[in-house]
Amino acid sequence: MREIFKQEMQQLGDDLLKQGREAARSMEGAAESLKNANLALAEQVIDADKRIDALERNLDEMGISLLARQAPVAADLRTVVSALRISSTLERMGDLARHVAYVARGRYPERVNSGEVYDLLVEMAEHATIVGHRVAELLDSHDLELAERIEEEDSILDKLHQKSFSLILDEKQHMERQELIDTVLLARYMERYGDHGVSIARRITFLVTGIHAERNMSIGDVALGYEERQ
Amino acid sequence: MREIFKQEMQQLGDDLLKQGREAARSMEGAAESLKNANLALAEQVIDADKRIDALERNLDEMGISLLARQAPVAADLRTVVSALRISSTLERMGDLARHVAYVARGRYPERVNSGEVYDLLVEMAEHATIVGHRVAELLDSHDLELAERIEEEDSILDKLHQKSFSLILDEKQHMERQELIDTVLLARYMERYGDHGVSIARRITFLVTGIHAERNMSIGDVALGYEERQ
Repeated sequence: MREIFKQEMQQLGDDLLKQGREAARSMEGAAESLKNANLALAEQVIDADKRIDALERNLDEMGISLLARQAPVAADLRTVVSALRISSTLERMGDLARHVAYVARGRYPERVNSGEVYDLLVEMAEHATIVGHRVAELLDSHDLELAERIEEEDSILDKLHQKSFSLILDEKQHMERQELIDTVLLARYMERYGDHGVSIARRITFLVTGIHAERNMSIGDVALGYEERQ
Repeated sequence: MREIFKQEMQQLGDDLLKQGREAARSMEGAAESLKNANLALAEQVIDADKRIDALERNLDEMGISLLARQAPVAADLRTVVSALRISSTLERMGDLARHVAYVARGRYPERVNSGEVYDLLVEMAEHATIVGHRVAELLDSHDLELAERIEEEDSILDKLHQKSFSLILDEKQHMERQELIDTVLLARYMERYGDHGVSIARRITFLVTGIHAERNMSIGDVALGYEERQ
């Protein structure tokens, strides 16, 4: 029974890692399709999201089955419940990557923007991609240094998100209405991708150390500037 | 033991209902603050979000404790796991209501928009408020007619979301950059609030009937129009 249990826990971990890698690949592909107006890549990302969703459904079933048949306690229980949570979060990260790809595809054959705004969005996409990869590595290794790296990348994303608002508000930046919409949405998608990465990083940290990170407001909320504007 | 278990399950349900009512009140308050540039109400909504987050943390602990000590199986297990999920989703709905309130507060004493765009956003906020209330009622009654109502309201929100893009893209609508940002974000926040409501509705439906709703793409994704634009 114990041996089967260990195998099932291993399977849960393996599938979660697989899902994490898919979510990372998706943002990497979406970033590339944004940067270089790559339609084929955008389509791949959009398609790949079904796999991420399917992995979540499987993990769901496996996790619940494990809970039902093995009634794990203590650390094992927290691990299973955490796996279910992380899987939901990865599913959401896959959705956000897909949304980025939709924008890239919708504007094909043009790039979504140009100049400073383009540079900023490409930079955000690169940092989001790093978040994705670090999350996958963290799921694999449980090396908490990676959790810190993810928090740093998310901080950068929050700052870039704030900068995107400055650029948009600058009337000297000529932008068509479509570009404005796309910029607001893309910056938000990628900032949220970072937030989700941090959420996973904190959950793994909690699993490993038993300590909850302080649930404070996302820097991004403050960065939205709503609190400063009068 | 069984009696304690039943009490604990009841407590879980009661706290989830409390959280659902808070999430509904938050969107109602946010909607009102948007409609009438009500600063005090916006501040209340922003504050209330801490309560929603605290309820989620409590529910989390209670749920995991229940799983550890009582090792529920079958329907009870699915109920506890679902409660954890629903609580996460309600926490996210509270965040979205708070984001709507941030926008209202940031533009005070002006309203966020005027004319057609204002009317549309106020309409979306009303439908989002309905979603919130129906979700709370569904958590209370498990009456699946409410689940259908929620899906209908979400459809309306998706259509209004699509309409918001048409309005923004219409150059004849004069809009400052700030208004453009706020409109894109507000419409998205409220559309996502509807999506989360549907997610809870489907989970309750699954709990009651044992049948998974087809996990198809949100109408909102298509409504974004990215698939149609060339």
